[in-house]
Amino acid sequence: MPAATVSRAPRVGIVGAGQLARMTVQAAIPLAVQVRLLAASANDSAAQVCRHVAVAPPTDFPSLAAFAAGCDVLTFDHELVDARQLRDLERAGHVLRPTAETMAIAQNKARQLALWRRHALPHPEKQSVSSAEEIVAFGDERGWPVIVKAAQGGYDGRGVWVVPDARAAAELWLQALDRGLTLLVEHRMPIEREIAVVLARRPGGEIAVYPVVETVQRDGICHELRVPAPLDPALVAEAERIARAVAEAVKVVGILAVEMFVSEGRVLINEIATRPHNSGHFSLGGALTSQFENHLRAVLDWPLGRTDLLAPAVVTRNVLASSAETDLHTGIAAALAVPGVMVHLYGKQPRPGRKIGHVTALGDDLADARERATRAVEALGGIVWERTAEREGAHP
Amino acid sequence: MPAATVSRAPRVGIVGAGQLARMTVQAAIPLAVQVRLLAASANDSAAQVCRHVAVAPPTDFPSLAAFAAGCDVLTFDHELVDARQLRDLERAGHVLRPTAETMAIAQNKARQLALWRRHALPHPEKQSVSSAEEIVAFGDERGWPVIVKAAQGGYDGRGVWVVPDARAAAELWLQALDRGLTLLVEHRMPIEREIAVVLARRPGGEIAVYPVVETVQRDGICHELRVPAPLDPALVAEAERIARAVAEAVKVVGILAVEMFVSEGRVLINEIATRPHNSGHFSLGGALTSQFENHLRAVLDWPLGRTDLLAPAVVTRNVLASSAETDLHTGIAAALAVPGVMVHLYGKQPRPGRKIGHVTALGDDLADARERATRAVEALGGIVWERTAEREGAHP
Repeated sequence: MPAATVSRAPRVGIVGAGQLARMTVQAAIPLAVQVRLLAASANDSAAQVCRHVAVAPPTDFPSLAAFAAGCDVLTFDHELVDARQLRDLERAGHVLRPTAETMAIAQNKARQLALWRRHALPHPEKQSVSSAEEIVAFGDERGWPVIVKAAQGGYDGRGVWVVPDARAAAELWLQALDRGLTLLVEHRMPIEREIAVVLARRPGGEIAVYPVVETVQRDGICHELRVPAPLDPALVAEAERIARAVAEAVKVVGILAVEMFVSEGRVLINEIATRPHNSGHFSLGGALTSQFENHLRAVLDWPLGRTDLLAPAVVTRNVLASSAETDLHTGIAAALAVPGVMVHLYGKQPRPGRKIGHVTALGDDLADARERATRAVEALGGIVWERTAEREGAHP
Repeated sequence: MPAATVSRAPRVGIVGAGQLARMTVQAAIPLAVQVRLLAASANDSAAQVCRHVAVAPPTDFPSLAAFAAGCDVLTFDHELVDARQLRDLERAGHVLRPTAETMAIAQNKARQLALWRRHALPHPEKQSVSSAEEIVAFGDERGWPVIVKAAQGGYDGRGVWVVPDARAAAELWLQALDRGLTLLVEHRMPIEREIAVVLARRPGGEIAVYPVVETVQRDGICHELRVPAPLDPALVAEAERIARAVAEAVKVVGILAVEMFVSEGRVLINEIATRPHNSGHFSLGGALTSQFENHLRAVLDWPLGRTDLLAPAVVTRNVLASSAETDLHTGIAAALAVPGVMVHLYGKQPRPGRKIGHVTALGDDLADARERATRAVEALGGIVWERTAEREGAHP
């Protein structure tokens, strides 16, 4: 029976209990949706704030099946699941949103590449490779360095390598063989901006698109979101068109995030995620409906909420701990003293570089919102990438 | 040790687990504040969504003391506590915000009256009475009918009687004697508008005031909030002045709500609550910082958040169930289809007239926001007082 027709509180099961699940638990309270978590550990970020927590590895099939049996619909905090197990759950009659098929695509960059080609969706030149020689041939033809990516398992800069020459390609290939990785090689595009589009899609195809975001990345990790992205309107329209086409191509249900490059006047698909995503964090307090609420509404097949910004400009900055000694509970009072900044902590123990929260500021323009968000990150003891760049003599 | 100086997550204990505590649990998640509840029942509104719940009556002293021992600061969802027990907790070194003294005032309308007189704060003519004859003398002097109120224990229209004549006064007096009630008699003012001011106050006296709200009451129950109240600026300023003076007089820490009348061009104090209050529900999604977050910030002695509205007009309507058969989980999909309406359900079983949630709409003007909020209440099967008034031939 579809979840939306049950008359008791619908039960949404989330596989994984990181900060995305935590913020979804928060969004579920006003909707009287009962969120249940399958957590790897009872102390996971979301498990700390949820009443219904099962603890088991997400790939232990008996645990997963028992968890699914207690939920009306199953959704995901991460992609580190076994797509074959998800298919078995669907065959047993469980409702998965996104589906096992969508999750299999979200896990695999080689399958995504095949889809982008089939749907003529713009992406950097790339190909799957089955030998070191194919990497070298690609580099010799399109120019060095090349980008090599693991088809599965990479995130936040992991599983991505900049390969300068044939010798490095041969070394990387051996390492990848050892670790059982499948690789893709990609032309290194000149990147003018990195942007993202977050949207929610219901089972029947209804879509709600959030404003285009500029993302500021350093070493493959997102530090900052600027919304709306300061971008030519034609590029904004193109980014939205691409994101909608991706949503249809992967048949997502729930939130989809499409990370893109602007390169030589074109918008190109970089990565996707079929779940709430860091690129959409501005929506929590910065838009009329957060991505977490819209994820729940989409997976329950309820009407989606409006995505309008609540101010002319919204800036979100991630809080990446600068040390293990970061004292958040002293820092938070200083951060809250910055006017009009919303602080979101994830309940995580600080470690150098670990993403432990984010802050969001509304403003009349991006400069004003950025200035206050940055002050709040500093107050919390987070890394401010501009300062690091200054110390290293680089140009931010 | 004050809560704000501990370096682990601060633990805020709430006595009571109704919808006010539920929305405070929600507000605590991004601040990484650990909320603990002392609930009368494990199925209470807030207990459904909180990880740390103790179940006991709020006036069972051993349970209350054990609960306090696990918290850095204690606060309240309601006034149905024993102020002497609270004083004993303070003597034992526990931090109560608001204090036992403030709670004792909040519980007792006779003590409040004494304070308003001492601080020359405007209020309807009223007095404590110790016999039926005193009610009759008051009515004969100021005119019938009079309003009689129980000094303690009343809310949502309970503990308030409109008394038309001497015979009714005598009957009420006998009933009150039976139930051990202390009474006040009050002149029935011509009421032009009912308004409220909600504010947050830190231990050191820092105050953040929310915009003045117009409240629409029927039979002593709040149905609707209109913000900002469509009111003469001089009356807005006077309402704020009074609310600030009340906050100082009762030495509140946390949220204070002051309900007031506008009568013959004057602003008069009606009721107060020293906790998050229905009059402040518009702030959840309608203002930059909700009253629930500011309550936590105040009781932890953290800087208060800005109270600016997120739109020119905000309307909140309560959802009072029209019958026990109200099917919320079908109704919610219809309510969410109304554009730009935020739905807040309390996880309560519908019963006729029971307050089971509220909806908030942002708009460019009050009429637009009201229209959408009303549609959402209808979709949820809630009572729309204008329709009831029409059916009964009354003028809304």
